[in-house]
Amino acid sequence: MRFFEDTEVGERREIGSFTFTADGIKTFAGQFDPQRFHLDEVEGRNSLFGGLAASGWHVASVCMKLIVADAKQLARDAAARGETVAAWGPSPGFRELRWIKPVLAGDTISFASEVESRRASDSRPAWGILQIRNTGTNQRGELAFSVLATAFVPRRNA
Amino acid sequence: MRFFEDTEVGERREIGSFTFTADGIKTFAGQFDPQRFHLDEVEGRNSLFGGLAASGWHVASVCMKLIVADAKQLARDAAARGETVAAWGPSPGFRELRWIKPVLAGDTISFASEVESRRASDSRPAWGILQIRNTGTNQRGELAFSVLATAFVPRRNA
Repeated sequence: MRFFEDTEVGERREIGSFTFTADGIKTFAGQFDPQRFHLDEVEGRNSLFGGLAASGWHVASVCMKLIVADAKQLARDAAARGETVAAWGPSPGFRELRWIKPVLAGDTISFASEVESRRASDSRPAWGILQIRNTGTNQRGELAFSVLATAFVPRRNA
Repeated sequence: MRFFEDTEVGERREIGSFTFTADGIKTFAGQFDPQRFHLDEVEGRNSLFGGLAASGWHVASVCMKLIVADAKQLARDAAARGETVAAWGPSPGFRELRWIKPVLAGDTISFASEVESRRASDSRPAWGILQIRNTGTNQRGELAFSVLATAFVPRRNA
């Protein structure tokens, strides 16, 4: 994890991809979003989605899973180089959570993060604030998912 | 599920409550958000959260679970009265996803929905569009979670 000073607007990072299986879609939906088009292939095909579709909350949760895994890997890499690792703060929220295309069973979604804006925090001088756009793109190159995250990032010399 | 004509701005509905257990918090986090303060009591106590804290995506997913269960119950009740049940469209997105207070192990969150605005769809005359604020309030009456959902709701005589 980097310090605020090491970030810049427009930088983009691929954070990993994930294939949504029918079983995985149904398991998540059974627990958290038991709507028919998330639970049954035929119902999915007959719905607006046109197939067994992952819950939007499943897609968002998988995005989070990959963000966390990527951050851990970055931290391990930095530690291995002997660098000080910045501990980012928890996110206070997300905005503009959008499911642009259905994520259907068998789809592979590639997630990426891009820094949209950055500023110093007025109220907390030890911190900077990034707005990070996280996106998910399917195997046909179509944007399927997007969410804008606010991140508190420590300043290097605070 | 009601038709667009049966909804009004300001109407509020309690949609159920849920107690977040330590086991449930860790299970979700292990799958989707394996950060230390979501996985371990001591790490949670030593974090900004002050205790083992549920992933925000867990809180959002539980909110969805209760929304779906409530909608199914409403549909069953309406069907039992012999009324026509309106089939709402899938939500294209959510906005202003906010985790205002940590949700810690043992917390019981009561969720509610309130219609913030309603309008006819310009492009799809058979549908109306509601903005619905979903909130989660903890057992101390503190607002912990909030998200604004867009819902497509069929018009009665379309």
